[in-house]
Amino acid sequence: MDRRKFLKGASVAAVGATAATLAAPALASGVKQLKMVTSWPKGFPGLGTGAQDFADRVNVASDGKINIKLYGGGELVHALKCHDAVQEGTADLYHSADYYYQGKSKAYNFFTAVPFGFTANEIDAWIQHGGGQALWDEVGEQFGIKHLPGGNTGVQMGGWAKKQLATVDDFKGLKMRIPGLGGAVLKKLGGTPVTLAGSEIMPALQAGTIDATEWVGPWNDMAFGFHKIVKHFHFPGFHEPGSMLGIGFNRKVWDGFTPSEQSLMQSCSYAMNNNTSAEFNAKSTDSLNLLVEKHGVQVHEFSDELFIAMGVASKEVLDEVGAADEITKKVYESFLDFRKKALVWSELSDGSYMRKRNLVDFG
Amino acid sequence: MDRRKFLKGASVAAVGATAATLAAPALASGVKQLKMVTSWPKGFPGLGTGAQDFADRVNVASDGKINIKLYGGGELVHALKCHDAVQEGTADLYHSADYYYQGKSKAYNFFTAVPFGFTANEIDAWIQHGGGQALWDEVGEQFGIKHLPGGNTGVQMGGWAKKQLATVDDFKGLKMRIPGLGGAVLKKLGGTPVTLAGSEIMPALQAGTIDATEWVGPWNDMAFGFHKIVKHFHFPGFHEPGSMLGIGFNRKVWDGFTPSEQSLMQSCSYAMNNNTSAEFNAKSTDSLNLLVEKHGVQVHEFSDELFIAMGVASKEVLDEVGAADEITKKVYESFLDFRKKALVWSELSDGSYMRKRNLVDFG
Repeated sequence: MDRRKFLKGASVAAVGATAATLAAPALASGVKQLKMVTSWPKGFPGLGTGAQDFADRVNVASDGKINIKLYGGGELVHALKCHDAVQEGTADLYHSADYYYQGKSKAYNFFTAVPFGFTANEIDAWIQHGGGQALWDEVGEQFGIKHLPGGNTGVQMGGWAKKQLATVDDFKGLKMRIPGLGGAVLKKLGGTPVTLAGSEIMPALQAGTIDATEWVGPWNDMAFGFHKIVKHFHFPGFHEPGSMLGIGFNRKVWDGFTPSEQSLMQSCSYAMNNNTSAEFNAKSTDSLNLLVEKHGVQVHEFSDELFIAMGVASKEVLDEVGAADEITKKVYESFLDFRKKALVWSELSDGSYMRKRNLVDFG
Repeated sequence: MDRRKFLKGASVAAVGATAATLAAPALASGVKQLKMVTSWPKGFPGLGTGAQDFADRVNVASDGKINIKLYGGGELVHALKCHDAVQEGTADLYHSADYYYQGKSKAYNFFTAVPFGFTANEIDAWIQHGGGQALWDEVGEQFGIKHLPGGNTGVQMGGWAKKQLATVDDFKGLKMRIPGLGGAVLKKLGGTPVTLAGSEIMPALQAGTIDATEWVGPWNDMAFGFHKIVKHFHFPGFHEPGSMLGIGFNRKVWDGFTPSEQSLMQSCSYAMNNNTSAEFNAKSTDSLNLLVEKHGVQVHEFSDELFIAMGVASKEVLDEVGAADEITKKVYESFLDFRKKALVWSELSDGSYMRKRNLVDFG
């Protein structure tokens, strides 16, 4: 997923350097007023609703002492300028996906999702109990940002195509909408990655300027209607196996919170993280059934041969990204170390169980 | 896992029927004082620490306006009498595992874990976005209890034995410590289920009165030291594929909370639910590596043949349990319906991805 130009007219006038005057949140009648910018339209399934869920939790649980006002992408600042806005103090916090800001630090990729990376459960384990949070904050410290988790899409799907993508040869020359590191992997496989905003994908499929596309998964993809044009849907995605969304606070605003307020923010972050993941899983299930049973979508599992090629290319891309600078190198080493251990545990627990229970028909 | 007589001397004097006077939480200097009973020793990894995590979150985020005081198992009431204590008003809330209270309603099994049931992610999806919470509250309403999630152990392991459990025949006559519905399944396979408290397992293994045991997983099991006596460890457990712990409030206490306080409790429940799952996953990884690399434990995957036999017996047990009464029947139907859909999504997302990424060596 990539939401560049996600909203038509999402660009807004550049915001001046008003950091000094705006770093402290506005206080009106004893209420701490906070501005929260987001990368999605208000109410967009899972993403916009997740951001609203966080704001509502804080506002209600603080009994009105904190009031977070949410701005959809493009309302206060451009949808992909959230990090800048919070760094500069134009906004107090954001809800976004930190890999949008890999231009500022390549390390941010690892705190959303990378090809062949962590599942949702694994990134939670790494962030919360594997040293990930400290590294994330170290990256954020360079920009005056305090980071917290903000929900997870779960394993994203491998995308939609006119015909089944069965072999490595099928990717050669394929024009596919797939941004970021996933796109870099496609390029290594001989394909042509195209970066398009969500709203631009349907016209491109209709005009035939792209052969294939990925977005998120059944729930979000069905809303766009890709299944009306292309009927072949593939799994699993290699490129974003559990994309963690993120909340970022202006560090001065965060440091100005009382310990009680910081604790409330952290609990509401984890609560929303849990709730958003649960919603993606519940809604994906329903949407997938609709796509298959009502819309005649054909679902294909990527072959082992294909996945091996994707994995080899992914490792090359990650090795390149992970060598970008000192801090990214440190993050990449922590990622690789935790990944190695987590793979074993995931295989012995969820992996093995989910495979073996399918051997028995429960009706 | 089953923690009957978990603590030596966990029994305490029976508590009188003082519900009427104790249903409203004590107020001292404007602070709402709440008593929280738990089924675990204070500080027990994942379980006791999870309960403490919830209490700390509420106490700090409420800025001292709420003060939850935590009692370890046996301190105020018997470790397995938490539900009674909260129903009667002796305590305001509990942290426990609701399947301990299946004597009150068989439906409670489905809100912790059942053989061949939900993974952690699936039970979260069912509870939070699949109708599970409303059913859980309907069960609790009979006893004046309001329920909320309280963490998840993840997939529990298949247990420890003197020799590898490779075929169905190896379970015939096997004396294994495995309580509850898992024990009922073992019985159908020809084994002899034994119910022992955690503290009683090591002596039984040493004396040879049991051949095998399960408890939770690498993190919790290593603390007991089973690996010093029995070296064969099996995965995956069929009996508890994602045991959700639970928080239960006295309904009158819950109804006496302001909307702000209820929201805080719910957010702290979800936050702790997320955090405890993450900790189990992170710590299991580390413990598993220690068991294998330092303690010479041999890890075996249950064969497909064995898992099919376990699955067939599990379905028989669930059909019996699910027919217990009207409300349990309703819960079982919801469980089966959600399970059917969830299985498909889990396989297409985490299941397929976790299997295929193992095809590539990341070093």
